[in-house]
Amino acid sequence: MSSAQQPKLVAVAESKRFMTDCFLAVNVPRDHAEAMADLLVGADYRGHFSHGMNRLEMYINDLAINSTDGAAVPVILKETPSTAWVDGRNGLGVVVGNYCMDLAIKKAKAVGVGWVCAKGSNHYGIASWYVLRALKEGLMGMTTTNTSPLMAPTRSKEAALGTNPLSFGAPAKDDKFLLDMATTAVAVGKIEIQRRKGEPLPDGWAQDPTGNQTNDAELAFSTGCLMPLGGPEISSGYKGYGLGAMVDILSGVSAGANYSTKVRKWTHAGANTAADLGQVFIAVDPNCFAPGFEDRMTDFNGRLRGCEPSDPSKPVLVAGDKEDLNMKAVDTVGGIQYLENQLKTCAALAERLNIKPLSFN
Amino acid sequence: MSSAQQPKLVAVAESKRFMTDCFLAVNVPRDHAEAMADLLVGADYRGHFSHGMNRLEMYINDLAINSTDGAAVPVILKETPSTAWVDGRNGLGVVVGNYCMDLAIKKAKAVGVGWVCAKGSNHYGIASWYVLRALKEGLMGMTTTNTSPLMAPTRSKEAALGTNPLSFGAPAKDDKFLLDMATTAVAVGKIEIQRRKGEPLPDGWAQDPTGNQTNDAELAFSTGCLMPLGGPEISSGYKGYGLGAMVDILSGVSAGANYSTKVRKWTHAGANTAADLGQVFIAVDPNCFAPGFEDRMTDFNGRLRGCEPSDPSKPVLVAGDKEDLNMKAVDTVGGIQYLENQLKTCAALAERLNIKPLSFN
Repeated sequence: MSSAQQPKLVAVAESKRFMTDCFLAVNVPRDHAEAMADLLVGADYRGHFSHGMNRLEMYINDLAINSTDGAAVPVILKETPSTAWVDGRNGLGVVVGNYCMDLAIKKAKAVGVGWVCAKGSNHYGIASWYVLRALKEGLMGMTTTNTSPLMAPTRSKEAALGTNPLSFGAPAKDDKFLLDMATTAVAVGKIEIQRRKGEPLPDGWAQDPTGNQTNDAELAFSTGCLMPLGGPEISSGYKGYGLGAMVDILSGVSAGANYSTKVRKWTHAGANTAADLGQVFIAVDPNCFAPGFEDRMTDFNGRLRGCEPSDPSKPVLVAGDKEDLNMKAVDTVGGIQYLENQLKTCAALAERLNIKPLSFN
Repeated sequence: MSSAQQPKLVAVAESKRFMTDCFLAVNVPRDHAEAMADLLVGADYRGHFSHGMNRLEMYINDLAINSTDGAAVPVILKETPSTAWVDGRNGLGVVVGNYCMDLAIKKAKAVGVGWVCAKGSNHYGIASWYVLRALKEGLMGMTTTNTSPLMAPTRSKEAALGTNPLSFGAPAKDDKFLLDMATTAVAVGKIEIQRRKGEPLPDGWAQDPTGNQTNDAELAFSTGCLMPLGGPEISSGYKGYGLGAMVDILSGVSAGANYSTKVRKWTHAGANTAADLGQVFIAVDPNCFAPGFEDRMTDFNGRLRGCEPSDPSKPVLVAGDKEDLNMKAVDTVGGIQYLENQLKTCAALAERLNIKPLSFN
């Protein structure tokens, strides 16, 4: 790593300040700007850099050319005691997501389950962000979103589904379970990393233009066809493909938003059409079932973490543990470590938007 | 294949008659016996032989030694407009499953979503069986069940979760989507097949006793540690592990049933304790969201099936297509093709239970 690539330390509060200022500069109302900054710094804090400040410029560009409406407030189109159909009105993903999950939470508290589908939404960052809101209220939470086509169905040469993530979480006593996963084997970011390192891809990550799996990172990147979780058909990639389709049915198809190949590409320069993504937000009150849920969850997590590891230096983890370890590490060193490239982008953004540059050590 | 292994043709109705008689012979009431036979022949009809008549003897043995109560009827322990907590009272899995999904359907029709958790259940066969009930009512359906420990969490040498299947389905106009998958890369049955054929396992299926993946079918079988969907950590097996854990949380942990390593082994001889499996049954009315759901589903399926295949002789399928093709093939040849080994087991069962033997061509 060249010295120019040495990471620099940015305080969590300063990262949030800078991103809030960026959104304010493109006329996003303060509460929406802060919600977006919280979401993005929250991703970086957890170590999911691909979904944090790394995407700031894309959101800003979408807002600058009005392909996203930063001021839009979601509206309920249809409602039952346990469901709602919401129009995000092309607002910011986090504004739609927070609104819909809070509505699902309210319904779950009233009748046991809240199931809220949104159309007219935009990229909502890390899916687990919304599930965390349910966990804070002692509820189980789940959310899925569709995304731009990037995954090839099993046997297909072409992409027809997105990375279509799914997040599910459950509260536990002094603990939690928090799964947040793309239904592709890996995200594009991981292929970019191998490409930059000049290293081959493991099997099962991506396809070449003929639809066969490839270990060539450059070819995989230019082809743009990720494989579903499970890889090729022989190792059950059709299951990951099935899960990706399930996500789109729960999100885009249910909501009457775009789905499958109808979803536009999301480019660095921003897009000139509305994304009209579909998303679902589900909250369930575990007290509707057997009493003592959170105690059992703690025991359940303990049974998993207590498994004898194959390599003693790599203990068995529960979904969400990696993110917690990352947050602790950030707290210990007193900030988030951003790469020099990221900071250059921020410096350019500060100049372009005429705001106070990002401070770092 | 030796001539002794040539498959024989059994009419669907005769397979059902025989299995019903078996259950009646161990004092299962007629309606429960027929429900079990429908479930098992339904699996064979769809080509899921591992979950059909292949398991008849295990169910019969469990009933014969009273580790399952064939006459038990489920009871509701707690209820809200959209949820129910049910005690299966150690009844047959299909009796619990049909009851709970019908209750979920009723609630979905009333308030949009029905979410029913059952404890005290037993193996319920193919998960999609219950989702089909929701589809027939124009609803989306979902179910999960926990099962005996057989999957090693990522990094673990030991099994701590079952194959923990998940089924999700959605109705479409003159079509449907019906996913039914274990959250392990493959089921044990596939390893048995490679073992009998004396062929190596593909990567990512199973572990050896040190926790590394193995291609040795014999060693994999004796170790009994399946890998999660995705295989090893490098190809994102932790996602399959996370999904398997999610299934157990939705099923066993929520229901207050057994979970993780608390679930007993299920042996051929039957078990002398109650399984106390946990299951969840979810129904959702898509009419609560954007109108025209079934038309969009048909278009969605068409976009997937319409992808250009890598191999023109292997078209892109949608979840459930394989099962439909199998049912058509059974209809064409006029019966289900059972292997000689299976028929020998049936002959022995007929003698033991003193019932009319299975007829075949």
